[in-house]
Amino acid sequence: MLARTRMQQAVPTTFGLKVIGWRHPLLHSRDRLAELRPRLLSVQLGGAAGTLAPWGDAGTRVREALADELGLAAPPVPWHTQRDGVVECAGWLSLVTGALGTMGLDIGLLAQSEVGEVAETSEAGHGGSSTLPQKSNPVRSEVLVALARYNANALGAMHQALLHEGERSGAAWSLEWLTLPGMALAAGGALAQAQRLVSGLAVDTARMRRNLEATRGLCLAEAAAFALAEHMPRERARALVSDACREAKAGGEGLIAVLERQTDAPVHWRAIEDPERYLGSAVAMVDAALST
Amino acid sequence: MLARTRMQQAVPTTFGLKVIGWRHPLLHSRDRLAELRPRLLSVQLGGAAGTLAPWGDAGTRVREALADELGLAAPPVPWHTQRDGVVECAGWLSLVTGALGTMGLDIGLLAQSEVGEVAETSEAGHGGSSTLPQKSNPVRSEVLVALARYNANALGAMHQALLHEGERSGAAWSLEWLTLPGMALAAGGALAQAQRLVSGLAVDTARMRRNLEATRGLCLAEAAAFALAEHMPRERARALVSDACREAKAGGEGLIAVLERQTDAPVHWRAIEDPERYLGSAVAMVDAALST
Amino acid sequence: MLARTRMQQAVPTTFGLKVIGWRHPLLHSRDRLAELRPRLLSVQLGGAAGTLAPWGDAGTRVREALADELGLAAPPVPWHTQRDGVVECAGWLSLVTGALGTMGLDIGLLAQSEVGEVAETSEAGHGGSSTLPQKSNPVRSEVLVALARYNANALGAMHQALLHEGERSGAAWSLEWLTLPGMALAAGGALAQAQRLVSGLAVDTARMRRNLEATRGLCLAEAAAFALAEHMPRERARALVSDACREAKAGGEGLIAVLERQTDAPVHWRAIEDPERYLGSAVAMVDAALST
Amino acid sequence: MLARTRMQQAVPTTFGLKVIGWRHPLLHSRDRLAELRPRLLSVQLGGAAGTLAPWGDAGTRVREALADELGLAAPPVPWHTQRDGVVECAGWLSLVTGALGTMGLDIGLLAQSEVGEVAETSEAGHGGSSTLPQKSNPVRSEVLVALARYNANALGAMHQALLHEGERSGAAWSLEWLTLPGMALAAGGALAQAQRLVSGLAVDTARMRRNLEATRGLCLAEAAAFALAEHMPRERARALVSDACREAKAGGEGLIAVLERQTDAPVHWRAIEDPERYLGSAVAMVDAALST
Repeated sequence: MLARTRMQQAVPTTFGLKVIGWRHPLLHSRDRLAELRPRLLSVQLGGAAGTLAPWGDAGTRVREALADELGLAAPPVPWHTQRDGVVECAGWLSLVTGALGTMGLDIGLLAQSEVGEVAETSEAGHGGSSTLPQKSNPVRSEVLVALARYNANALGAMHQALLHEGERSGAAWSLEWLTLPGMALAAGGALAQAQRLVSGLAVDTARMRRNLEATRGLCLAEAAAFALAEHMPRERARALVSDACREAKAGGEGLIAVLERQTDAPVHWRAIEDPERYLGSAVAMVDAALST
Repeated sequence: MLARTRMQQAVPTTFGLKVIGWRHPLLHSRDRLAELRPRLLSVQLGGAAGTLAPWGDAGTRVREALADELGLAAPPVPWHTQRDGVVECAGWLSLVTGALGTMGLDIGLLAQSEVGEVAETSEAGHGGSSTLPQKSNPVRSEVLVALARYNANALGAMHQALLHEGERSGAAWSLEWLTLPGMALAAGGALAQAQRLVSGLAVDTARMRRNLEATRGLCLAEAAAFALAEHMPRERARALVSDACREAKAGGEGLIAVLERQTDAPVHWRAIEDPERYLGSAVAMVDAALST
Repeated sequence: MLARTRMQQAVPTTFGLKVIGWRHPLLHSRDRLAELRPRLLSVQLGGAAGTLAPWGDAGTRVREALADELGLAAPPVPWHTQRDGVVECAGWLSLVTGALGTMGLDIGLLAQSEVGEVAETSEAGHGGSSTLPQKSNPVRSEVLVALARYNANALGAMHQALLHEGERSGAAWSLEWLTLPGMALAAGGALAQAQRLVSGLAVDTARMRRNLEATRGLCLAEAAAFALAEHMPRERARALVSDACREAKAGGEGLIAVLERQTDAPVHWRAIEDPERYLGSAVAMVDAALST
Repeated sequence: MLARTRMQQAVPTTFGLKVIGWRHPLLHSRDRLAELRPRLLSVQLGGAAGTLAPWGDAGTRVREALADELGLAAPPVPWHTQRDGVVECAGWLSLVTGALGTMGLDIGLLAQSEVGEVAETSEAGHGGSSTLPQKSNPVRSEVLVALARYNANALGAMHQALLHEGERSGAAWSLEWLTLPGMALAAGGALAQAQRLVSGLAVDTARMRRNLEATRGLCLAEAAAFALAEHMPRERARALVSDACREAKAGGEGLIAVLERQTDAPVHWRAIEDPERYLGSAVAMVDAALST
């Protein structure tokens, strides 16, 4: 399929590499969860101001027993004014929704009528419009984008609430309460939507190939420039290909055909013409990623 | 010294426990830095769209060699569209400034003219006002608060930039560039200011004690209620102390004196009267925290 | 041209109506600027804490004279702790960059290789890639999106700085300083980029028409359903058109042709077939908007 | 009462001037509401993509009739993709909560045990702690701060949603829905809390005077410096007062007494000694503000 950089067709890639790119940040976040867990799941008992005064001499022992009972870590001090664990968790929620939002953004773009390389599902009636019978709106992708942007923004309020004065801030505390539940819901909702989205995703490989072919070789301009550069200075090769791209765009001819006509450099054009020959390590990287 | 919860005097605590509370989130962030390091410091080489096509079959080997040369980790796929590592780093910057901002907020409050338990420094002329000769503004504390709020907010833009479409988003990329340098400067500036602040901090232990004494026992109301509750139902004990608090506030008498007068419960009031006896595990927790 | 809702081709519209939609919020913001001007451009003189004490009895007269001299409004009280005027101005900056960002987002989507209805410019070499000779990246559009998202986020910090305690907050003040200059630069930069963008914009009306035609009538599904509904219950009409859409998509036949074959309702299909007949009030609204 | 700048006692002011400072931004926002009203309360009818196609030639007339029926303005074009009116309204909500949040922050600081110049109410039991019988937490003030910070942050999401692509963005739309209701609730809640807070506010003028006196003249250092500067160079006057401030702080003597002892400049110290004589135009400005 086509890779698209900065909203423009670029070079050939594989759908697998794209999917690995969606998946990798989620794997990272699985690791992050294991790491933040002990900082987050730790007992909080301190009394009114964290001194454990109501328990007299037994305070730290009571706290340790409580931690044991609840299966929580027991940090040396109470954390009622130290919100970094909770805020780190909020950051994690937003990293997760952000990773899913990127997938949603990508799928929405690939599902555009003019691109048509994927659809959220092949089920009839999915994403139906109230008035436009022909439509199939990418409703799950949109929700993933919206939830990601929601959490990205909400996270700011959690970090503002890090500023927790004295031995208890009523204002910072309330700000957390107003913010964290919505973030958890957004992350949970995004995970549920994402699961449905990837389960149903309909991939149109024929359209992917047609879109590649419809570029008439423009997506191989880089490959052509590198091939020519073996026979002339790199800058000249690039200028030559740039001119040929313009001519191909204007005239409707294929890029390789234009180049073949315009240069007698002994390039093996047939080899270049095939997008599958310019996939680099895409396939190998997917294999490597899946085996780790 | 007095612990203050929700902007009100609460119970006795120690300055050490407060300092440990400032320090602990910074220790957490030191751990976080070690954890995020391999996710952040990993090689990025992929060519125009991440396929490594320009290097032909040698792509992954070139990338691994580059990673070796630079001392970076080599993830199985390029990360130019996976911004979670960079964004996690931004979150870390804000966790650090947030921890320092809490310290700044606390010191600013403790340095208020009416509280006076700490001063940013004992140097004459520090924080001088342009027009008020008597003032010593808590300029470092203020900056810590401002930088923390700045980073807390800026982080939202970094998380928005997680939504990185296709094989390269020009817009998301630019948004990172507009945001991350300022966040790093803010964190660096906050660390530098914080170092100066803690080096120079002047702690007025006599004032701490005077402020404790000026409560005329009100900061021991909880202790008194617990002591009484050994001799009567808890609710009655609490109501009795509440009434006594009101009377003490109104009449200028000490809380313990009022209680002694109003109840014949065999409480050892002399023991309760001393704030140092109601520090719970404050000292032990500081020792434990410092020994880890 | 095609209107696209939720990233999918919808119904015919005109490019003029789209442009009016970009322009209208900017006109609103021109009005807003006139309205906020007196709140923003007002004199600030109050002395150390806003009492005008250093000027003795002459304080308010001095302030009025200063306002006159500077051509500023003179509110009854100093506004050094009332930041609403400055923050409103920041909101205005973000409304402006947001309006331009929407235009940038739209142009970026219309300029996608697969859509190709506009290009940032017809100049050769614009938005050239460092390695892909065929590309023309929508660099101005991207910048407009990035600056809009930057200001959208930065505005949050300005609103946090509304919380300005006592007679002067050093922290809130600093937070404004860290934020507002960047917002003004972003808005100014966006206006400059937008001007260049609209001056050079190349509109490909032939491609617009080709894209319309390539839908093979699907963009007229709503029109067809309304026409049929004059001869049968609305729901039946809609179901009929939905089925016809699916058949047209699958078989490559035109929607109107499928419908003509499948129903004998006396609809004047020739009239529906022409997208220009389903533009509603698009042209009239543009005329009306331009004449106000 | 004392004005406090940068968390430090500054010069005398009046409580009235402080209240006017809380009120003024709210008056501004009342004006803003009238201004934004026609931009916000305008009819939205456009059909699937804003062309009014379903109404044929009658589109604009139908829209105008609908606007009349609903008492809404009728802009020349639909605004379903132009979100500036809705976003401006969100900005207004945050300006209101921000103004109330500043009041809450101020009251919380003035209600600190060590300051004690106001209390949220004189009712017994207000803001009672679950465990500390002596406390009266400033619960309304805290909520005002929390809601202000919540809206300040949420506003960023609304401005992100300005970026509304094509003729309808499902993602931007959802982001608004996730955000605006919470902002309206926060503003409504803040207004309700603020009303209760100001209705019940207990102002302790005796404590205000005691706090002024407890500065032993330090809050008049500026006045003293200005008075001395009539008899010597300004810099020398200021240095003299600075030294006297240090001596007064160290020795417990009053500032004016120290100055009287240290200089023979013919200053009328008795006149300076009275804080009420250094209120500048505070009273006049309050009168002026209330009469407009």
